[in-house]
Amino acid sequence: MPRYIVTFYPKKIQLSRGFNVYGRAMSVAKEGDNLLDIAKPANVFLNSVCGGKKICGKCKVIIRKGKVKTEETPFITPQEREQGYVLACQTTIHSDLEVELLPESRVEDEQFLTGDEEIIMDQFNGQETTSPSQSSERLQTISPFPSLTTKLHLKLSPPTLQDNVDDMGRLLREIRRGRQIPFIQTGLMNIKNLGRFLRDNNWDVTVLLGNRDGIIELMQIEAGDTSAQNYGVAVDVGTTTVVAHLVDLSTRKTLGIEATSNSQSNYGADVITRIIYSLDTNGLDVLHKSVADDINGLINLLIQKNRIDINDVTCVMCSGNATMTHLLLGIDPAYIRREPYVPTANFFPIIRSDEADININQYGLLSCMPGVSSYVGGDITAGALACGISESESTCLLIDIGTNGEMVLGNKDWLVCCSCSCGPAFEGSGIKYGMRAGRGAIERITINDSDSEVNYSTIGNDRPRGICGSGLIDVLGEMLRVGIIDKAGQIQSDLDSPRYQESEDGPEYVLAWKEETAGGYSDIVITQSDIDNLIRSKAAVYAAVVVMMQKVGMTFDNLDRIYIGGAFGNYLNIEKSVFIGLIPDLPIEKYQFIGNSSITGTKMVLLSNVAMAKAEEIAKKMTYIELSADNTFMEQFTAAIFLPHTDMDLFPSVAKKLSSAIKLTHGEEQYITIK
Amino acid sequence: MPRYIVTFYPKKIQLSRGFNVYGRAMSVAKEGDNLLDIAKPANVFLNSVCGGKKICGKCKVIIRKGKVKTEETPFITPQEREQGYVLACQTTIHSDLEVELLPESRVEDEQFLTGDEEIIMDQFNGQETTSPSQSSERLQTISPFPSLTTKLHLKLSPPTLQDNVDDMGRLLREIRRGRQIPFIQTGLMNIKNLGRFLRDNNWDVTVLLGNRDGIIELMQIEAGDTSAQNYGVAVDVGTTTVVAHLVDLSTRKTLGIEATSNSQSNYGADVITRIIYSLDTNGLDVLHKSVADDINGLINLLIQKNRIDINDVTCVMCSGNATMTHLLLGIDPAYIRREPYVPTANFFPIIRSDEADININQYGLLSCMPGVSSYVGGDITAGALACGISESESTCLLIDIGTNGEMVLGNKDWLVCCSCSCGPAFEGSGIKYGMRAGRGAIERITINDSDSEVNYSTIGNDRPRGICGSGLIDVLGEMLRVGIIDKAGQIQSDLDSPRYQESEDGPEYVLAWKEETAGGYSDIVITQSDIDNLIRSKAAVYAAVVVMMQKVGMTFDNLDRIYIGGAFGNYLNIEKSVFIGLIPDLPIEKYQFIGNSSITGTKMVLLSNVAMAKAEEIAKKMTYIELSADNTFMEQFTAAIFLPHTDMDLFPSVAKKLSSAIKLTHGEEQYITIK
Repeated sequence: MPRYIVTFYPKKIQLSRGFNVYGRAMSVAKEGDNLLDIAKPANVFLNSVCGGKKICGKCKVIIRKGKVKTEETPFITPQEREQGYVLACQTTIHSDLEVELLPESRVEDEQFLTGDEEIIMDQFNGQETTSPSQSSERLQTISPFPSLTTKLHLKLSPPTLQDNVDDMGRLLREIRRGRQIPFIQTGLMNIKNLGRFLRDNNWDVTVLLGNRDGIIELMQIEAGDTSAQNYGVAVDVGTTTVVAHLVDLSTRKTLGIEATSNSQSNYGADVITRIIYSLDTNGLDVLHKSVADDINGLINLLIQKNRIDINDVTCVMCSGNATMTHLLLGIDPAYIRREPYVPTANFFPIIRSDEADININQYGLLSCMPGVSSYVGGDITAGALACGISESESTCLLIDIGTNGEMVLGNKDWLVCCSCSCGPAFEGSGIKYGMRAGRGAIERITINDSDSEVNYSTIGNDRPRGICGSGLIDVLGEMLRVGIIDKAGQIQSDLDSPRYQESEDGPEYVLAWKEETAGGYSDIVITQSDIDNLIRSKAAVYAAVVVMMQKVGMTFDNLDRIYIGGAFGNYLNIEKSVFIGLIPDLPIEKYQFIGNSSITGTKMVLLSNVAMAKAEEIAKKMTYIELSADNTFMEQFTAAIFLPHTDMDLFPSVAKKLSSAIKLTHGEEQYITIK
Repeated sequence: MPRYIVTFYPKKIQLSRGFNVYGRAMSVAKEGDNLLDIAKPANVFLNSVCGGKKICGKCKVIIRKGKVKTEETPFITPQEREQGYVLACQTTIHSDLEVELLPESRVEDEQFLTGDEEIIMDQFNGQETTSPSQSSERLQTISPFPSLTTKLHLKLSPPTLQDNVDDMGRLLREIRRGRQIPFIQTGLMNIKNLGRFLRDNNWDVTVLLGNRDGIIELMQIEAGDTSAQNYGVAVDVGTTTVVAHLVDLSTRKTLGIEATSNSQSNYGADVITRIIYSLDTNGLDVLHKSVADDINGLINLLIQKNRIDINDVTCVMCSGNATMTHLLLGIDPAYIRREPYVPTANFFPIIRSDEADININQYGLLSCMPGVSSYVGGDITAGALACGISESESTCLLIDIGTNGEMVLGNKDWLVCCSCSCGPAFEGSGIKYGMRAGRGAIERITINDSDSEVNYSTIGNDRPRGICGSGLIDVLGEMLRVGIIDKAGQIQSDLDSPRYQESEDGPEYVLAWKEETAGGYSDIVITQSDIDNLIRSKAAVYAAVVVMMQKVGMTFDNLDRIYIGGAFGNYLNIEKSVFIGLIPDLPIEKYQFIGNSSITGTKMVLLSNVAMAKAEEIAKKMTYIELSADNTFMEQFTAAIFLPHTDMDLFPSVAKKLSSAIKLTHGEEQYITIK
């Protein structure tokens, strides 16, 4: 009997105390299970007043993908039915499902946020999270302006002979009204013509305030009420990919996302090559300028698409590994690769963005997430912050898969982390038709048992341009399942399929015929070399997880929850990730796919100095474990260069499926929205 | 019987709690009084182990000026005797005296500081003054680095695999070692090449730290130990005169003093004229640049004379009235003179000095003393800080005489202040041969009763170049005493003295014949016009004091202590100041001449952020009293345009002296150092 995966979204997930994100929750169902019943194991609480008696009409959801059976009900209009609305309590499950939750049917009365991202920041406020940790001095300074920058509209009373406070004092008095702000720093530029400016504008102005480590800076004064025009950018500076999110700092909504390849790739694929390049004359400058240009390009795209003035972009928060952060800031990274491998800085000051050649408002601020060591950077701190490991009672594991695989293991009492190089294959780099998770990327694939034909779906439902990380995992899993590749990853030469081709570089398998593609001039294929790359990448990740668990003397059973992060796109098939041996064979309910956790954590910090304080605590608390210190990692890596693993006892669910693969008849996924 | 004035210096004076200055103390003696006995009423405690029995030899002092009788003693060598050393206990007084105190004979075991200034900062440390006032949040942040800037020599341990803290973290860890510093701000410039810099210099560096309102900023990192090379400049930006003191921030000693005319005088003598000039195109810029150039010139003179590198001058603290401070910072002063007369700022941020075009270390800091209102500026806050009024149990009065006369009255519970325009006469401006208190200035004068001949002494004992404020007060008093002028200030035309001359502009009196002068080409005279100016100035000061006392309902008897400040030079004859009616006729012991109190307070703030916090408290606490609100001030002014006053009952001591002037035979001072 097939197991169906039911995905609920957007699901409000309480992460770090006081911070919520909207993510996805998954539940496993059997054929014919009731949708309302299956929501509860995923901690999705639908607003079911009647307790599932089909009489209150409150548990309304939208079926976005998959096959269900449901009943006629007066609570659903015909127009709604067209769009997939059902009552969960009178709906049964007959395939994998994607279920969209409605604000009115969720118990939490949260504002429903839109955006094409997978995780959206919930509204929050630094002042709501005022339980300072003992270990952080910064948390004792809860700022009334938690965002990196804030705009505040002020209507000042003009001075009189009775109230003859000076102009600057009058302005600061109004900023401080009802707020505890011991320090307000500013430069002369805001004072020189303040007298005239205030009078010319009838004492009606908006101040731009920066929050520099809890110290408020008066950055700029504008005429009238411009408080709604204040934007920040969160940037994930990956070795291979740079992603930027534009955030409206007054509504806290994400307005847009753009991504690009890191142009530093022209000077080396990995951090070590780039550090070596930086040692050349001007090398550091070239690498710094490359990534600064990438970020400036992304910001320009974002403001153009959203019709925003660059002067209203007032802050940038970046995360990246130690080398990426050093290069972004123009800091010499030479010592990262020299014993004893210490970076010049793990913690970075909040600076003017133009110090890093990032072009926003001339007084704009820029900061970078704090890192742990030369090999665990601010991106991982951000991920750990986003998934809330450091506040969890039970032990959790975060696996973040990028050009490096990084893991964080722990709970509220302790945190360890490690890093392994796994190559950029899951980011689509080093794969013939690999691409970032953007429009036209094949993000999911199934292959028919019967005729080895390929079904795929792409991001944005565009014609395919290539394959992104989640698609590559699906490909590997499906090819293994239907026998196109063997457990060693070898494409079988005796395949009776037109999709099997021999090229100069060896065998390959066609995923999309050229007629179907966006370009239209070549087939999208997966090559033997691609498969070998993917297997090495997945083996590195798995080996790192195993060695890390061994080093702390724990088994997988000790894990309460496993967060999977990475630039896979909107979607990651956890079952197939287990199937190819990328991640341990554990109950699917223990997994939570959190997408690009780095940018989520980075946005949290952009929006809250409390989050920044938590990030610093995490960075200070994390202990780095060196995996390469002995041979254990190489041994585990070698054992894992197999699908799913040389030791099938480690993957009992996969062993079971492989042995019964031939008998499967319900394997194909259906992309049918019910009518 | 004549009264002699005995001046002791340098006398340690406890001002604000935790701050001491070396000043002068005065005592009044009769002919033949014992010097040790007379020290006590002036609170000068000599180290007299034997209790004045002439057997311990501990009460050694140096007689710098005046006539004494003393005995032979084995405790004084013949060489010492040549230089004026005596034992106070076996010395009697036979003229006015200047007595230099020796460090070994003072009870307080304080470091003896040198310098040609009248008041020298004592060594102090912010941490010694840790009793925060309830009203100031800032005082709760006692910094381990109280000076505006501090250099700290650090020897870091190199990183190892065990201690693999990042370079920046290692540096900050060492800065924080044993110190509570929650925030350390810095820019990227200190981080970019930190890795190489630390290794190239064998982890042996000196950090330059700024104290910005209690927040520590890492300003610069230098190789090796440069901690002894750190200098600050305190600047008193007067309307007429700009004075700069160079301070060694590591020893806290004043190394040099320079003064110059404020070049803004070319664009107007008083603040109102300059504000009007600032409204012209580029007017503000011209005025700003003028005074910035003056200050840069003074700093250059100071560093050349002391052979100091400009990069080692790391901070500047300025004080001035509201208009002077606005112009220095390039802030539009227009609204100071428009109802309701509010300045753009009373409190100023700590900025980079180059924001105000002051050239020191490129990252150097500059700040200005906080002011109270458009007409009571940071110079008065500094004066009030220096004399410690705001911490006094009993009620005190500060009279600061410059181009404006400003008064502060109060005690630890309340403070009021007022301001009057008295013209720059006492600064030597508007007086034919007036000059600043610099080398060659006639600083004291006596005139013989018998032949009206003039005796004078000059600063530095140079040939005379002109007359400074203290000399002018002496001139006025002596001319009145011997009858050269009458009580209305008119030079008597029937004088039988070659010194009486008639010029085109009216009568004048020769103080120094041209042959005696430094220039040698003209007599130094005092003209009728000079005398009229001086009388108007002194009348304004006296009238302001009277009106202020009336407004708070107090009489002079309520005053415990009166501090006289101003740019008179090293010396002010209090008796003669009373004699001409500049200040009230009160017992001389109640007066304390504190010289340029503005620069003293400014230096205190340069050296201590605790002093800065106190200054801010004072500025917030002071209530400004408008003198011109009714006619009282004009009435008092008119009554005071007379020597000493139209109402002689207010000056009984003067009345007595004037009536007996003819009988005086011991009036002449003697400038004899005993042999």
